[in-house]
Amino acid sequence: MTGSRLDPWIDAYAARAMGMTASEIRALFAVASRPEVVSLAGGMPYVDALPMDAIASSVAHLLTTRGHVAMQYGNGQGDQSLREQICEVMAPVGVQAHPDDIVVTAGSQMALDLVTRVFCDPGDVVLVEAPSYVGALGVFRSYQVDVQHVAMDEQGLVPEALSEALAACREAGKRVKLIYTIPSYHNPAGVTQGAERRAQILTIAQNAGVLLLEDDPYGLLGFDGEVPQAIRSHDSEGVVYLGSFSKTIAAGLRVGWAVAPHAVREKLVLASEAAILCPSNFSQLTVSEYLRTQPWMDQVKAFRELYRERRDALLTTMEQQFPAGTTWTVPSGGFYSWVTLPDGIDATAMLPRAVAALVAYVPGTGFYVDGQGRDSMRLSYCYPTPERIAEGVRRLLATVIEAELDLIQTFGNAPVHLPPGPATPGPDLA
Amino acid sequence: MTGSRLDPWIDAYAARAMGMTASEIRALFAVASRPEVVSLAGGMPYVDALPMDAIASSVAHLLTTRGHVAMQYGNGQGDQSLREQICEVMAPVGVQAHPDDIVVTAGSQMALDLVTRVFCDPGDVVLVEAPSYVGALGVFRSYQVDVQHVAMDEQGLVPEALSEALAACREAGKRVKLIYTIPSYHNPAGVTQGAERRAQILTIAQNAGVLLLEDDPYGLLGFDGEVPQAIRSHDSEGVVYLGSFSKTIAAGLRVGWAVAPHAVREKLVLASEAAILCPSNFSQLTVSEYLRTQPWMDQVKAFRELYRERRDALLTTMEQQFPAGTTWTVPSGGFYSWVTLPDGIDATAMLPRAVAALVAYVPGTGFYVDGQGRDSMRLSYCYPTPERIAEGVRRLLATVIEAELDLIQTFGNAPVHLPPGPATPGPDLA
Repeated sequence: MTGSRLDPWIDAYAARAMGMTASEIRALFAVASRPEVVSLAGGMPYVDALPMDAIASSVAHLLTTRGHVAMQYGNGQGDQSLREQICEVMAPVGVQAHPDDIVVTAGSQMALDLVTRVFCDPGDVVLVEAPSYVGALGVFRSYQVDVQHVAMDEQGLVPEALSEALAACREAGKRVKLIYTIPSYHNPAGVTQGAERRAQILTIAQNAGVLLLEDDPYGLLGFDGEVPQAIRSHDSEGVVYLGSFSKTIAAGLRVGWAVAPHAVREKLVLASEAAILCPSNFSQLTVSEYLRTQPWMDQVKAFRELYRERRDALLTTMEQQFPAGTTWTVPSGGFYSWVTLPDGIDATAMLPRAVAALVAYVPGTGFYVDGQGRDSMRLSYCYPTPERIAEGVRRLLATVIEAELDLIQTFGNAPVHLPPGPATPGPDLA
Repeated sequence: MTGSRLDPWIDAYAARAMGMTASEIRALFAVASRPEVVSLAGGMPYVDALPMDAIASSVAHLLTTRGHVAMQYGNGQGDQSLREQICEVMAPVGVQAHPDDIVVTAGSQMALDLVTRVFCDPGDVVLVEAPSYVGALGVFRSYQVDVQHVAMDEQGLVPEALSEALAACREAGKRVKLIYTIPSYHNPAGVTQGAERRAQILTIAQNAGVLLLEDDPYGLLGFDGEVPQAIRSHDSEGVVYLGSFSKTIAAGLRVGWAVAPHAVREKLVLASEAAILCPSNFSQLTVSEYLRTQPWMDQVKAFRELYRERRDALLTTMEQQFPAGTTWTVPSGGFYSWVTLPDGIDATAMLPRAVAALVAYVPGTGFYVDGQGRDSMRLSYCYPTPERIAEGVRRLLATVIEAELDLIQTFGNAPVHLPPGPATPGPDLA
């Protein structure tokens, strides 16, 4: 890129910054944020459903009564009352913790960053699912971690594959620092580990002496009335659990948390103070006030119904419209389905044509560090209405996948250049 | 510590985490936050002076009219309108920037973190003032930077010392990545670089080809009616400028920013997305609404008057009460004076006795990475009332410094063990 050649500081960057370049795909997603495009790409929660008037009056009350606290620096670990409330919020997923075990962060993305900062030297291995959350991959890469993918099936991370990956690292003399997993309503795979699967994974991690990093932003957003029990509910010393209010309340507040063993928690707090001094009291007390005065669990239930209806719209229309050879996961909660395209179709190559047809998705390659995922894409149903979702799937089928199939039958596959940099939208592009 | 020996993950931490341990001094500052203690230790702005009712109604208006934006993910670079407003906020310090040059962060501490992340490999040198801001030292250490202090005088960073430090690094084959400076109302030194001094420092940095990191949280908080012009006002390619709303509006919002050359800015945005996805829209739009609807500069002027009165109380009482041999800087803005104690008094050793006498300060050693500063302490006048400040100084004199002098005259100096970990209060302890 011309821009890079003109950068006077090009020789001054840290080694970890070498991969920090913007990709052309980002520009495509910027186009995809136009209102005429049906975006099945982003992971924006449908915050329009929030009781804004009630939140407004509770924030106003907060500022007039405790403004001198809300507007002030807080402590590095996070507000004490909020940490007590977080313990209650985690009760449904079975996590029993003391408020002192909790570190509040600026979204759970930051908790991912802190855990990586505390544990990972360059070259250390982190085992992640195949595919895995793009934001986690970004953090791991920014610490020069050796990210290795482990196979999933319809129940998520495959225990045998995890054991094999650990053994292979041991044999290769590589140090595995973390096993990163999203057990419930996986982003992007849309699958959920059953209770037995979770127990197997925990046992493998314990036997290997590797810390399990359990990311659970969607745990309360199941559609079948059941709340999967967190892996952390069975082991308080071998698991760091990450939670978030981004999907149960609002992403714009940037309030998440980590639950960690005592000594780890202490290091996370010191790392957080280096990173941001302290999380925002304004955001934290707003969450605290919301939990205290609003029927927050009723709102979570309303979100569940809303997202279930959208999931149904996606699944029904895919069933009706997608050509033979297309398969997908059936999420029982969360925001995403993972679609595998008919043989020969490259989801990355197809994206510009999809955007031209006014529909957007994230190509599967964005969720791997190693170029896997070309035949796959993530479809999100969290933000558009059911009608828009159905319309988007029809466009994806009618004008794009079928056309790709025709092209392949006529010309065969063309090799695709994978651009550098993030191959997923920015956080605010739905 | 027993706790460390019991940590099952003690062998799993990254090299950068080895220094992340809590110190006993932290416990002392926790005691110092009790209301009966006059704390001259922390750097908490006096947010009680804010127009809380006006802020409350503007936040309520924001949520009812644009709640779906405020509660949603934003983009990694920060809200476009806020970035435009930040350009106006920087006009008084002479920084001319395009909104696209700005990255909004969760407080300017996070901007420090991102710049270090993008530029510093372990072992790289960052030159800092002697003494320097403790939060910056924490960031640099967390990236295993070789921090080297450069002498200051009554006008801040000494150009000759800077040149010598750069030459010494060059000779030693060390790579200097950043020159970190706080030109206006220095924390903790309480001094300000004059215009000529700034020009000299910039020229030295330019000639050495080293990026200047200019930290300016207090720039608008001068007491003499003049606003020092930022170094960045003379060079947009060789300086990264950090700004903050923590002292001009409210620290609890956690909104700061960096102004950086184009290619650097791009990397900072990608680093920020890895760290936190995006800054809080809720906080950003609250700041934006406040700037749009409130007479924000009048409030800054009110803060100036308030802090000037407190500074005067500190200086007057020190003049009246401190024993011969005690010297201090006379700040013309900001929050701090740097006090050098009479020969033989160790400020770190004295701290427990000061806290027992119900007055707290930060020992000078907290602002160095190399054990310098034992004869010094930082006194903050930002948070207590003038009466409390005067009372605190009297306590510091009458019951503590004089007693130390007596002890030294009787027994001589005792060696002091410096505890590991942060030797300064957490962010919320005034």
